[in-house]
Amino acid sequence: MALNLTQKIFKDHLVSGEMVAGKEVAIRIDQTLTQDATGTMSYLQFEALGLDRVKTELSVSYVDHNMLQTGFENADDHRYLQTVAARYGIVFSRPGNGICHQVHLERFGKPGKTLLGSDSHTPTNGGLGMIAIGAGGLDVALAMGGEPFYTAMPKVVLVKLTGKLQPFVSAKDVILELLRRLTVKGGVGRIFEYGGEGVASLSVPERSTITNMGAELGATTSIFPSDEQTRKYLKAQGRENDYVALAADPGATYDETVEIDLNTLEPLIAQPHSPDNVVKVREIAGIPVSQVAIGSCTNSSYKDLLGIAAIMKGKTVHPSVSLGFSPGSRQTLEMISQNGVLGDLITSGARLLESACGPCIGMGFAPPSGGVSVRTFNRNFEGRSGTKDAKVYLASPEVAAACAITGVITDPRDLGVAPKTVDLPEKYVLDDRMMIFPPKEGAGIEVLRGPNIKPLPTRDRISETVTGSVLLKVGDNITTDHIMPAGAKVLPLRSNVPAISQYVFESVDPTFPKRAKEAGGGFIVGGANYGQGSSREHAALAPMYLGVKAVIVKGFARIHLANLINFGILPLTFVNESDYDKIDRDDQLEFSTAGLEKGTLVLKNLTKKIEIPVKHSLTARDLEIVRAGGTLAYVKGRAR
Amino acid sequence: MALNLTQKIFKDHLVSGEMVAGKEVAIRIDQTLTQDATGTMSYLQFEALGLDRVKTELSVSYVDHNMLQTGFENADDHRYLQTVAARYGIVFSRPGNGICHQVHLERFGKPGKTLLGSDSHTPTNGGLGMIAIGAGGLDVALAMGGEPFYTAMPKVVLVKLTGKLQPFVSAKDVILELLRRLTVKGGVGRIFEYGGEGVASLSVPERSTITNMGAELGATTSIFPSDEQTRKYLKAQGRENDYVALAADPGATYDETVEIDLNTLEPLIAQPHSPDNVVKVREIAGIPVSQVAIGSCTNSSYKDLLGIAAIMKGKTVHPSVSLGFSPGSRQTLEMISQNGVLGDLITSGARLLESACGPCIGMGFAPPSGGVSVRTFNRNFEGRSGTKDAKVYLASPEVAAACAITGVITDPRDLGVAPKTVDLPEKYVLDDRMMIFPPKEGAGIEVLRGPNIKPLPTRDRISETVTGSVLLKVGDNITTDHIMPAGAKVLPLRSNVPAISQYVFESVDPTFPKRAKEAGGGFIVGGANYGQGSSREHAALAPMYLGVKAVIVKGFARIHLANLINFGILPLTFVNESDYDKIDRDDQLEFSTAGLEKGTLVLKNLTKKIEIPVKHSLTARDLEIVRAGGTLAYVKGRAR
Repeated sequence: MALNLTQKIFKDHLVSGEMVAGKEVAIRIDQTLTQDATGTMSYLQFEALGLDRVKTELSVSYVDHNMLQTGFENADDHRYLQTVAARYGIVFSRPGNGICHQVHLERFGKPGKTLLGSDSHTPTNGGLGMIAIGAGGLDVALAMGGEPFYTAMPKVVLVKLTGKLQPFVSAKDVILELLRRLTVKGGVGRIFEYGGEGVASLSVPERSTITNMGAELGATTSIFPSDEQTRKYLKAQGRENDYVALAADPGATYDETVEIDLNTLEPLIAQPHSPDNVVKVREIAGIPVSQVAIGSCTNSSYKDLLGIAAIMKGKTVHPSVSLGFSPGSRQTLEMISQNGVLGDLITSGARLLESACGPCIGMGFAPPSGGVSVRTFNRNFEGRSGTKDAKVYLASPEVAAACAITGVITDPRDLGVAPKTVDLPEKYVLDDRMMIFPPKEGAGIEVLRGPNIKPLPTRDRISETVTGSVLLKVGDNITTDHIMPAGAKVLPLRSNVPAISQYVFESVDPTFPKRAKEAGGGFIVGGANYGQGSSREHAALAPMYLGVKAVIVKGFARIHLANLINFGILPLTFVNESDYDKIDRDDQLEFSTAGLEKGTLVLKNLTKKIEIPVKHSLTARDLEIVRAGGTLAYVKGRAR
Repeated sequence: MALNLTQKIFKDHLVSGEMVAGKEVAIRIDQTLTQDATGTMSYLQFEALGLDRVKTELSVSYVDHNMLQTGFENADDHRYLQTVAARYGIVFSRPGNGICHQVHLERFGKPGKTLLGSDSHTPTNGGLGMIAIGAGGLDVALAMGGEPFYTAMPKVVLVKLTGKLQPFVSAKDVILELLRRLTVKGGVGRIFEYGGEGVASLSVPERSTITNMGAELGATTSIFPSDEQTRKYLKAQGRENDYVALAADPGATYDETVEIDLNTLEPLIAQPHSPDNVVKVREIAGIPVSQVAIGSCTNSSYKDLLGIAAIMKGKTVHPSVSLGFSPGSRQTLEMISQNGVLGDLITSGARLLESACGPCIGMGFAPPSGGVSVRTFNRNFEGRSGTKDAKVYLASPEVAAACAITGVITDPRDLGVAPKTVDLPEKYVLDDRMMIFPPKEGAGIEVLRGPNIKPLPTRDRISETVTGSVLLKVGDNITTDHIMPAGAKVLPLRSNVPAISQYVFESVDPTFPKRAKEAGGGFIVGGANYGQGSSREHAALAPMYLGVKAVIVKGFARIHLANLINFGILPLTFVNESDYDKIDRDDQLEFSTAGLEKGTLVLKNLTKKIEIPVKHSLTARDLEIVRAGGTLAYVKGRAR
């Protein structure tokens, strides 16, 4: 049977299950990556597995999020990550070496392999023809321990590209066009596989911009074939041996097809506050801009910066604009420092920020109050920039450069400058000295933990009768940002669950953590779509630490549901949604866990002296996990 | 009469007073500079004067402290500073353009002129043969308004240099040697004037390292003659016209003399936690280092970075060391990006931080817990790095580079590498596009204030009878850090007195601000040496905002005393120190202000029904200021 590329790689890695869209499959993971904001927890979880060394072909630990270091926490985390990597056979990429996805693309990604990363933009490496999926830190810890990755088999969507990008139109515009058409929910349960004659003209960095921001479609991942462009890129990275040609079989079929004519694409821009709020740049040209930010795992490659420099050279940043740029990797920074491009950018008035995620995750360079910031990034959610009332627009590097020069939103075709072709280098600067490769034998290495690195909290096996009070009652559409905020204040606490738990539900009810601890835990009651948004596992882990035993709601968002199971919190839904009204805060609840296998159980409201039927959607494996007190306990118990 | 250089410049600028050490003089100020952490308040104060334009020859507003921008506050401040500068005829140096003292040296400093800056390291420009003094923001605001600067005439100390610095020995070692000999109190009430045959061999950037860190001696300022080195430097900066030869008259006398033989100086290092805790590097060689930081207004010049690159080139940063560097100015950054030195540093594994104060004022790059950080900076106070238990050492760029390579404290002479001579350029890159020069007429310009920029609080005229309760009673040696903390959390609030006031006495009694507001103000009672440490005027301004009417102590530190007067808080001392024991927190106090001119008054303790004699040291002018509600009100009232 003719297979598409996705199916071919899944088939090569299939451990269990059937490759039918929607059915659970388990696939073997060849490579893992972590970044520091999720990685510390992931390695604490890996340590809890009690193994001596990672079982993957390659695992890499990057530092790119928490790099401001306004206190001891970040530096402590970096030291922990460096030593735990050496101990367990993981490559450590030092702070300053660049953004995980960019560096992985340059130095480690391989066509045909699977990559699991504890960052939602892991699909970036799909640009190299690999299946690269973002997941929670615990899933990555398990993959490092040799466990397969479980997921519902996604639908495969063919994105058929025709034609060729026109001057000043960029790979970013391809993915913005998809977001415009399909919205941020359009990719859920899907993998986007790129094909068609238009593919050949796109270089690997361009492809990676597209696969990177496929995450904003809600897609499981995105993938390009491995072809002559891939070979050229790998050769220029000194890795021609990693090249294999990969493409869909002739006659392969897809669940869905989307067509994009590159010839007719125009510069696009996503308006506040969603990546799918996309219009043509010319439609909103003239809006005054206070800040331009270039960088992030989406658009910070050597090619991107050369494209910007080609526009900026000899020009000056507009007096009302602050322009900052963060090269995606040290390789890129070294190369532009050697060929004069860095000098051109600095001379134009750009502020060089560290090679890291930086402003894209709200780590510095926040816009002024009410400011308009044009960014080459991937997300423009309200407040994510660090400034609550800022208006963030997402666009290509070319558009960003044009805005920086004019001080208003500008289509680069209207600058009146001639387009310049940016050629990729025949050979990148190869210098992996900022990677620390692990020794063959790590048993003697001491793992250094500063006071910010606390042991992983654990949960006991579930008891036969679960009792407690309702600690909090919330409405519909509660996001993981409500449950566990991020930002420059909270993010440095990601490896310190007791500390970060003090911020749970901070914007909803700041008394929650104290009350939960004092009550010895209890329940959360919520409405529909509970736990939507970011995949952060701390939104389950921190409530678990505070003693939350079950969450009872009208409905769950998918990833948060999985995280609750992973951390041993029972996710229950009302059989009758109207029963939501029959529970108030501080009500005493009780249920028996004996009959969980039936799928329904009876919740006793002891305060109101009524009984409420609730249900769950857990598989037998899920139930074992929750009974065991979470996935780690389950996996460890199984190993005994 | 033969005058020394200090006396010559003072004489040229004398407005009133007699140049006798210890007597008050008032001098005309030619130039002012501000940085952003003190500048926003300074410009709010200038605005309160109600003038149309600054009256100085040159006033420059720099942005170098608050550049992390983790929230809207910093960017709002930058926007305010940019617009208020244009409105009132001030040059604005954009964020990224560099550290105030470095940039001022490069582009504006002039031999023979006076410079007043709202930053304690303003003496840096003494390296160019000018009298450059650090002061509070209000003093700078007054200078911009054409007021003279009042100070007690300092003693003048001749520092006689002989010989020549040996390979790997640096200008930094000259000032470390002085700190070793004289301690951090050795310069109080003094100006250090450099002379002797050793002066001729020191370039302007080297001289400025020395004058910069004269601040750590407690000196009013430091100054070098203006000679052939000065001419060469100014010529290379395209400013040969600003050159005048200046030196002490033959036969000039000094209050004191210190001699340093440059031939015999060795690499020195200041150990935690004081800049005068100085030993030879070889005495403590071998201590493991976790971090090296290069930069700050002390050691971030083009010459400094070239010296470091000469040592680092082809080497790799030790795996256990994180090396960060912040070029002092965009000129330096441009030049090293053009000549390959930047590439050499990046290739060696250094992290390039923004051209700003950065880690020197605890804005990022904090060391790990208990970490050893070797820094080319000027202060190593406990906790200033952002990590409370870090151990910070201060040394020259050459020593820092040696430590980065070996991972332990290392004398660069023991590296076994040949010394390289670093020549200063014949011509610096001249590009002032990141300076925004003000328009001729600023009246039409709107000053933009974000929500972080609050109007300056004012105080009414003092009442005839002052009544209130004792809000806080503290012991001896309370620092301005106790009264008004700094750091990455609090520093962004410097232009928002109501917000920053919430942190007053945070580490002593976090209930103070709330209690003070609720009580409608009151009194602080303290012991000896009250208000020692940093000169920050917020340690007076914020208590004034909270309603503090008088501070009654055993003794005051000099600068804080002046700040209390500036903001209309009456500084009183006990006639009998033992009376300190006769007042407790919450006691109701009362005194009459009618007889303030007598120098003593009677404090009634209404609670304890006793009378306590107190005194003050205020001049008639000081008393007028306090009566008026502070210096601003006084100056405005006088103008009417």
